[in-house]
Amino acid sequence: MNNRPVWIQNIGELATLKSAQTGPRIGEDMNDLGLINNGSVWVEKGRIEAVGTTIEIKEKYESRMEEADVIDAGGRLITPGLVDPHTHFVYGGSREEEFERRLQGYTYMEIMNAGGGIHSTAKKTDDTPYSQLLKESSNRLDLFLHHGVTTIEGKSGYGTALDTELKQLRIMRELNEQHPIDIVSTFMGAHAIPKSFAGREERYVESVINEMIPAVMAEDLAEFIDVFCEKDVFSIEQSRRILLAGKKAGLRAKIHADEIVATGGAELAAQLEAISAEHLLKTELAGMKAMAEAGVIACLLPATALFLGEKPADARTMIDLGVPVAISTDCNPGSSPTVSMPLVMNLACLLMKMTPAEALTAATYNAACAINREDRIGSIEEGKQADLALWNVSSYRELQYFFGVNHIHSVWKRGELVINGFGR
Amino acid sequence: MNNRPVWIQNIGELATLKSAQTGPRIGEDMNDLGLINNGSVWVEKGRIEAVGTTIEIKEKYESRMEEADVIDAGGRLITPGLVDPHTHFVYGGSREEEFERRLQGYTYMEIMNAGGGIHSTAKKTDDTPYSQLLKESSNRLDLFLHHGVTTIEGKSGYGTALDTELKQLRIMRELNEQHPIDIVSTFMGAHAIPKSFAGREERYVESVINEMIPAVMAEDLAEFIDVFCEKDVFSIEQSRRILLAGKKAGLRAKIHADEIVATGGAELAAQLEAISAEHLLKTELAGMKAMAEAGVIACLLPATALFLGEKPADARTMIDLGVPVAISTDCNPGSSPTVSMPLVMNLACLLMKMTPAEALTAATYNAACAINREDRIGSIEEGKQADLALWNVSSYRELQYFFGVNHIHSVWKRGELVINGFGR
Ligand SMILES: [Zn+2]
Ligand SMILES: [Zn+2]
Repeated sequence: MNNRPVWIQNIGELATLKSAQTGPRIGEDMNDLGLINNGSVWVEKGRIEAVGTTIEIKEKYESRMEEADVIDAGGRLITPGLVDPHTHFVYGGSREEEFERRLQGYTYMEIMNAGGGIHSTAKKTDDTPYSQLLKESSNRLDLFLHHGVTTIEGKSGYGTALDTELKQLRIMRELNEQHPIDIVSTFMGAHAIPKSFAGREERYVESVINEMIPAVMAEDLAEFIDVFCEKDVFSIEQSRRILLAGKKAGLRAKIHADEIVATGGAELAAQLEAISAEHLLKTELAGMKAMAEAGVIACLLPATALFLGEKPADARTMIDLGVPVAISTDCNPGSSPTVSMPLVMNLACLLMKMTPAEALTAATYNAACAINREDRIGSIEEGKQADLALWNVSSYRELQYFFGVNHIHSVWKRGELVINGFGR
Repeated sequence: MNNRPVWIQNIGELATLKSAQTGPRIGEDMNDLGLINNGSVWVEKGRIEAVGTTIEIKEKYESRMEEADVIDAGGRLITPGLVDPHTHFVYGGSREEEFERRLQGYTYMEIMNAGGGIHSTAKKTDDTPYSQLLKESSNRLDLFLHHGVTTIEGKSGYGTALDTELKQLRIMRELNEQHPIDIVSTFMGAHAIPKSFAGREERYVESVINEMIPAVMAEDLAEFIDVFCEKDVFSIEQSRRILLAGKKAGLRAKIHADEIVATGGAELAAQLEAISAEHLLKTELAGMKAMAEAGVIACLLPATALFLGEKPADARTMIDLGVPVAISTDCNPGSSPTVSMPLVMNLACLLMKMTPAEALTAATYNAACAINREDRIGSIEEGKQADLALWNVSSYRELQYFFGVNHIHSVWKRGELVINGFGR
């Protein structure tokens, strides 16, 4: 690690996301980006030492200027490194042939019979050896990093048995150490009911509770637990039991809720004080209100809605009701094969009518809150990790407006320049 | 220019777009990509000399292998360089503040009064000096190239007077010589009615016909003429007169038609044997049938539909009726601020339900047809320009499936490596 301080100056617009508020930003506060024009950041030992205008920082560090590596941001925008709070990035295989068949007009059943669907990913994830799955997942993380993401959440759940769950979580732990991106792990044994448990769903729920959770905890492999609570998948009651068991073991709850049908998943999230609820395409007003009251973060996934041709979540009503909103790629091979948080921010504006500032808050500070990391990332403040994204635009507005383009210039992770757009 | 032949080999999937058909591909032929697995291309003096499997090319050029620069495509996909057949890439200013206001809930009139809308771009384009407008447009072309585009159409039409029309067209002519991207120019004086002609629309139509067209032709500045035929802009009759005058002067016709209201623009395109009709969001069955019969290419713009929150054009019905379909970014500051043809292909699949193969045909061969360039670009065939795109994926399916990511690896323009992803 470089021990010299790094002084990044001539930042045209510095979106610090600093605020007097604590906890996830809600309502009008989602528009407060803590902007500094002509800003500077002073980084030391991987941490942010000072943030301010260039004039302020110059004054403060006048006596130490000689020590520092000076970086000229060229009048560009700097934001916190993006945070992707909901992915399934450890998976085997790829499903582009299924995608083509769908567009060629084949039915869901025909696609399943041709070996498609979630079970095909489960089988591929079962069958891919640890080292290969690690390599493929690491390559995927490289792409995330190239799109400005410095912290990511990853879920298990693409397996047909405990072995594969553990394999995915161990890969995430190893990648967290090897890769510049920080990884936050979620156990999601209750993602789909494996084929081998067809007609014995209760038996599978018991296996998740009595075998999987203890095995995951024995190796300390996860911080969160998640359930796909949906009609014909895990019922409200099953989801409650699984999440309560997880909580009892020390995991915090997340819920894939109301994606296809409003089953009351949002209300369950509120009752269990889940940290976040995911998707929420079909959530009704009562569910949103319950979430707002309990402070559950809505993790919205507009790229998934686009990929599936669904109407996206009603972000505007949620924000108006005071639900804190985060956004995410949902990176997965079945319903959101993408790694682009920049596109997700664009889609938050274009499909969900979030403002450019709300979209940025949802992809940084609120996303950090959704994975319980707001103490160290998600904003550019004294003492936090120096996870920074430099963009080839001059304002946060341009980042959302000039869409479908990865505007990343450079990325710092803990003060190290891990994507280097200088001198190209 | 490099005079050594270039042998590109180990191409996992080579989408040649070669076909026994002539003219734009229609119906089921849009799915025929002329695929070669384990392919090779032999390039000499900027042209494609031979295309085939690696075994075929090895055999054919055995005696000349020593002469060639050998490039290993690493099993990746190669397609023709993408063609963007509809843009307004020469414009002054930027409108991200208007974008933000729209999302903050300001009305159209409030935005216009705050200096937004097409007239603001016209004013900025008027006011930007030639050299600066050239530089900004050139930077935009760089971004297109980085997204795999090797030929682009550009339209004038962001001015309030003849001077600005000529400025834009001269910039396109100069960039066509300076920049690796080939530019095909369209005169579109009839894009909006300048504020100074409010209430005297007929007078403006006469100015387009009697002053602008002759001035454009005197300098040989355009190949095509285009009109924004729309309710409250240029009527069917005005559009007909303008396009006929253009045709008489030697320009081929294009029409922005049926974007907001079905006014019969598609039918007019068919009557005038326009080379293409653009947008077509509201076109009815009769208009589509007329286009199919007359062989008018539908140039569809799904990124614009996304940006404006409109239902995209009915590509499926058009393809079923035998209308040849091309796709384009529509790059412009008001309704499609993007340069990403890769995203446009993704959106063709996701929003318009085109198949992955149709989307690629629409962005290459059919796009070349829409600008009358299929004799030299749009497919990888003996004798054509060596305009090639190498992608970081192994198949055309993956290019469309793994969405929102610019998968470009390298780009050749006339045999020169202008985007170089090797050795990074
Ligand atoms: Zn998910
Ligand atoms: Zn246009």
